[in-house]
Amino acid sequence: MAPVEENLIKSIRIVGSGLIGTSIGLALAARGVEVEMLDRDPKAQKLAQDLMASKISPNPDLILFAVPASAIAEVFRAQFELNSKSRFIDIVSVKTKPQLEVARIPGASSRFLASHPMAGREVGGAASARADLFDGRTWIYCPEFLDGRKVDSDVIEAGLWLIKALGATPISMSAADHDSAVALVSHLPQIVSSLLAAQLNGSKASDLELAGAGLRDTTRIAASDPDLWQEIIASNSAQILPLLINLQNDLGSLINSISDPTQIGALISQGNQGRALIPGKHGGKAREYTQLPVVIEDKPGQLAALFDECARAKVNIEDLTIEHSPGQFTGLITLALSANDADVLQKHLEKSGWNVHSPR
Amino acid sequence: MAPVEENLIKSIRIVGSGLIGTSIGLALAARGVEVEMLDRDPKAQKLAQDLMASKISPNPDLILFAVPASAIAEVFRAQFELNSKSRFIDIVSVKTKPQLEVARIPGASSRFLASHPMAGREVGGAASARADLFDGRTWIYCPEFLDGRKVDSDVIEAGLWLIKALGATPISMSAADHDSAVALVSHLPQIVSSLLAAQLNGSKASDLELAGAGLRDTTRIAASDPDLWQEIIASNSAQILPLLINLQNDLGSLINSISDPTQIGALISQGNQGRALIPGKHGGKAREYTQLPVVIEDKPGQLAALFDECARAKVNIEDLTIEHSPGQFTGLITLALSANDADVLQKHLEKSGWNVHSPR
Repeated sequence: MAPVEENLIKSIRIVGSGLIGTSIGLALAARGVEVEMLDRDPKAQKLAQDLMASKISPNPDLILFAVPASAIAEVFRAQFELNSKSRFIDIVSVKTKPQLEVARIPGASSRFLASHPMAGREVGGAASARADLFDGRTWIYCPEFLDGRKVDSDVIEAGLWLIKALGATPISMSAADHDSAVALVSHLPQIVSSLLAAQLNGSKASDLELAGAGLRDTTRIAASDPDLWQEIIASNSAQILPLLINLQNDLGSLINSISDPTQIGALISQGNQGRALIPGKHGGKAREYTQLPVVIEDKPGQLAALFDECARAKVNIEDLTIEHSPGQFTGLITLALSANDADVLQKHLEKSGWNVHSPR
Repeated sequence: MAPVEENLIKSIRIVGSGLIGTSIGLALAARGVEVEMLDRDPKAQKLAQDLMASKISPNPDLILFAVPASAIAEVFRAQFELNSKSRFIDIVSVKTKPQLEVARIPGASSRFLASHPMAGREVGGAASARADLFDGRTWIYCPEFLDGRKVDSDVIEAGLWLIKALGATPISMSAADHDSAVALVSHLPQIVSSLLAAQLNGSKASDLELAGAGLRDTTRIAASDPDLWQEIIASNSAQILPLLINLQNDLGSLINSISDPTQIGALISQGNQGRALIPGKHGGKAREYTQLPVVIEDKPGQLAALFDECARAKVNIEDLTIEHSPGQFTGLITLALSANDADVLQKHLEKSGWNVHSPR
């Protein structure tokens, strides 16, 4: 996508200082847009506003709602009464409900663009926000209401500018088509991950110590916010129900043939096929960092010493993970860097006697 | 863990030149152990043996089986007939079945150590092997047979040496306990991931273009090898079945209350709790840590300076995440510490002028 050079929007008010709202604010503040962060929780609002390091405009060009679906009616009404000529956009995970709420307010439909960025993280809140959360992601927008009314072109233009400025790809879609698609690719995986993680309750701690990357990955989104998700799923239950019934049928068949390797193999193969259908192109492009594993002694001061070496080698650490095993006195640190920095750092650490492994 | 200096084992024969067998071979060859690689596929065997660049001993100190569960009986019998005085170890993902197979051969039990490294990759084969695959991982071993017979101490010693030499942490467990644990933490997630991915078959391509990280993570292991997994699951079906029935009950309950936000919220919360049980460091629960957000300037040297402060404050960092992106002039470091250490560090950093936020 061509870079978006001009700031069509000079100022924005973001209602909701959670993960999505704060991430949008961060990206826009970095472009020089004046960003005002609001939240019903004053601590969340202060952290989010601090992160922006931005001036605030009293009459923002765009007002964005990053709140739960149930709050849309109230916050939209309040902001619309303050300035009915502004432009309004939401990022709620279901799209039929916000459109229906806004359509109840006379004259509001044409100023409101329903939209949904296909990005999120399992952890919420401003502290987890990141400016590149939407980079390479798909972002749905709904230029028409369910009754056929059209959104004003200046509002759509502002929305499209926002989406592209954040590095995302806009896709036009009806609210109904959106809600059907996300039932399959977002809400069903959330329910399945939560159901799986719920099976761990009451299990032996010694069993869970054997957990590997498979369990961790399949249950990552099970850490999602219950308040957020109960709203999303209940708001879209008509679309989700037939998917759950199909899953129930498949699970029942498997239970009836759990000792039959052929039947199990057929299920795993069907899973292979389904997995292969997920496109790599849209949504969450993998960060192209090189992973450099370093084994350190697991005691205070070791991480500091390692980062001193990184500073001495003049490399920039993009991310890292720390892995420990039960009862183990060494820790595996995996540093994520550019390929060039990884090369420089590996040589530097080897010279200095660190237990560094080949990058991958 | 103290480094393993001496080579207790001077030579090994590895039957099975897939990912695990070849990775073990690579690590041992790098230590100067003579490694012989075998495989029923001559091409796989030649690639693996070439990678070792090692001499071969006709009478290896240790014979390791890295083959599917269904092949254990045949390959063990063949190797045991050749040299019944050697030491034998397997790394199959289920442990009751190999013990039962070996127990049928008179005099064999005491020479056979059943074991299972808790490591793997989505990609198989010798070409994906890496010597550090087991570094920092847990590795189960079974010093007793199901009937109470004990494995000879020289065989256990050889197994423990192997595990430690590969950088893994040995954990003693009965075969039954192992199979019960992996049913929950490995086999159930595999089945759930495959079932979920199978639901994608026949869906609209435009729907799947909206897939995000949630669907990708929950279905990552759905790409696993059907031949491998149909054996694992069928071999452990007695342990898996009750878990699937519990899952079926929970799914049925959810289907009956899919429009009720309270019931959905309860499921997501149960998923939160289950997810939080998956251990982080030293078997401690992930949730036991306090998260301390620190906003730093996003440039080399800042992390080192921060960790110097941590060392000065004498606190132990359990984990951390780095959030930043090009275009953003600040980076957010979230440190995970004990509640007490978080309190100490927050005060220390505030005094030293760091932009530290309230812990959560």
